[in-house]
Amino acid sequence: MDHERIAVLAHEKFPDRAKTALGVLRYGDQDVLAVLDRDRAGDRVRDHVADVSDAPIVESFADAHAAADGDLDALYIGIAPIGGGFDESWRGDVEAAIEAGCDVVSGLHYFLNEDAELAALADEHGVDLVDVREPDDDLTVASGASGDVDADVVLTVGTDCSVGKMTASLEIVSAARERGIDAAFVPTGQTGIMIAGWGNPIDRVVSDFAAGAVEDMLLEVGDDRDLLVVEGQGSIVHPAYSAVTCGILHGSMADGLVLCHAAGREAIHGYESFELPPLADYVDLYEDLAAPVREASVVAGAVNTNGVADDEAAAEAVASFADETGVPATDPVRHGAGDIVDAVVEAGLGANPDAGDAAGGDRATEGGGTAE
Amino acid sequence: MDHERIAVLAHEKFPDRAKTALGVLRYGDQDVLAVLDRDRAGDRVRDHVADVSDAPIVESFADAHAAADGDLDALYIGIAPIGGGFDESWRGDVEAAIEAGCDVVSGLHYFLNEDAELAALADEHGVDLVDVREPDDDLTVASGASGDVDADVVLTVGTDCSVGKMTASLEIVSAARERGIDAAFVPTGQTGIMIAGWGNPIDRVVSDFAAGAVEDMLLEVGDDRDLLVVEGQGSIVHPAYSAVTCGILHGSMADGLVLCHAAGREAIHGYESFELPPLADYVDLYEDLAAPVREASVVAGAVNTNGVADDEAAAEAVASFADETGVPATDPVRHGAGDIVDAVVEAGLGANPDAGDAAGGDRATEGGGTAE
Repeated sequence: MDHERIAVLAHEKFPDRAKTALGVLRYGDQDVLAVLDRDRAGDRVRDHVADVSDAPIVESFADAHAAADGDLDALYIGIAPIGGGFDESWRGDVEAAIEAGCDVVSGLHYFLNEDAELAALADEHGVDLVDVREPDDDLTVASGASGDVDADVVLTVGTDCSVGKMTASLEIVSAARERGIDAAFVPTGQTGIMIAGWGNPIDRVVSDFAAGAVEDMLLEVGDDRDLLVVEGQGSIVHPAYSAVTCGILHGSMADGLVLCHAAGREAIHGYESFELPPLADYVDLYEDLAAPVREASVVAGAVNTNGVADDEAAAEAVASFADETGVPATDPVRHGAGDIVDAVVEAGLGANPDAGDAAGGDRATEGGGTAE
Repeated sequence: MDHERIAVLAHEKFPDRAKTALGVLRYGDQDVLAVLDRDRAGDRVRDHVADVSDAPIVESFADAHAAADGDLDALYIGIAPIGGGFDESWRGDVEAAIEAGCDVVSGLHYFLNEDAELAALADEHGVDLVDVREPDDDLTVASGASGDVDADVVLTVGTDCSVGKMTASLEIVSAARERGIDAAFVPTGQTGIMIAGWGNPIDRVVSDFAAGAVEDMLLEVGDDRDLLVVEGQGSIVHPAYSAVTCGILHGSMADGLVLCHAAGREAIHGYESFELPPLADYVDLYEDLAAPVREASVVAGAVNTNGVADDEAAAEAVASFADETGVPATDPVRHGAGDIVDAVVEAGLGANPDAGDAAGGDRATEGGGTAE
């Protein structure tokens, strides 16, 4: 998956209900040359979203293709209906993309490759249908080698699902790169995979291979970078998803953890009878559980204040989190992840080993890596 | 899977390298009427294994069928070569079993149902090929309902893989039933599933559904029993398998934990650079991790002294474990699980709610359940 010029399908849902489309626009390395949304055709992306590259919003793939001067690599499905099904109203656009020689990338539960018509058409036109939720079939058990990669590894861990771990991870990578740290994002879920253009969907991997599928990614990129930021999933005390969380924690053999929390959240999302434990307990739980495989401290907190009324209340929520956990915190969306990168660097992580070791004091935070 | 009269295939490996065959003989509810081992044909099971029902060892399925007076329900594959492949030298026996109207039950990685010849033959004869490693395809995420079943739930947890969690679980069930506690074994791995005749192989389940697949089993049997003993897997600090362990811990919502350990084990089996943490740390780790989903204490220890020289050294190992962990311990194979059941009952678990609640003092340890 190495696409440079793409169109993103987000019919009837752009931007507020198009999480993947927004993520690709905001954090992806790909150039988004058009967004398909038949309800907003004629508008431009910037009419709705600040701080991203602009592009036209169009009615159909044919219009996207024209807007891109006939030069597109891929169509990304940037929305997911509840249940993850394929909406038949998209079929014409997907077929047109295939016929124009574009790959089609999808994070849906419904696998495009298992759609006989689309699969045959893709075969005929020599393009790939990329179902990012389908794990590679050559995954296996972890060997315990993640800790041997040259890069330092930071993992975002959460107090719950849906607290902003992917966004925090991407913001940390972005802020680290601004400092010249050669950082990369390691995706573990379908949206992150579509943004990054590679990765293993850990929640879809057989539980015996969950840690191994993380290790597989770290071994692939870990010697080429100074800092890897692994996208965490779920929460270590989630009644349903803790297996995924635990596999990522031990599979990543992280050197440092960033604890992500949604301000005001008091119970597990969707499991309201399960109260969140005190924030300080999470620090102990994650550190104590990580230690026998690899010592890792919680070095910072990322507080999602999306649901908070105003800047003042957000600042209070962040301060309260820092007070309870004893680590520096910020809202990486409201304020950027600079403070988190400070804490990561302070912990001795992300230094370019060729430019002097952190312990030696010569920290390569500027010019030591390759900014991208 | 409800087989009463079975033959078990263990060619060239009975008894020492036939873990599944031995488990079925020792703990299964099925009557084993013959064991297939062409190297020992003519011997009897009791020539090699004490304390199990006797049966002839035979050369082939045809001989097994004759020994059972032509009345067999199923052939169980009781051995697994390294890699879990299907040995072609078994094909004649498997075909003969199918042609005789027997189901064939296998825990191999190689799925009998994906063998076109065997699948066609099974179809023709109206029998089932049961691949116990293949998870049901209707599994889903946990809802957090395990804690609502009538039965109390005990989970065996481990300091490592291969420390005897399955055996400890089966011995606890056996000892509990001897006291009249209506206890049942909840299997989570392929050998346990073949012994019990039902169950979900949690290590083969997609990690998102690991806890849900445990919950699915507890909801199926939890209201019909007073005590469920869930077979744990792996270890919460295993570099590769902790996801499975964590999914079972939270999916079972256990009321009590039994910590299983192999005497003398100092590093993770097969991952020798990872030292086991102190035993007391495991108690804290499992209890602290369980608590936010369901409070559970480690109530006893099961120490596998299989590798220990003599009874005296075994007693020392058990005493040392009890001292380090602060909980009563025994080797359930050497001495039975009576002491563990004492500790379970002492913790108020396994009482028949219809016969008086544990908190009320009227504990139904005798006659309160249905011994089987």
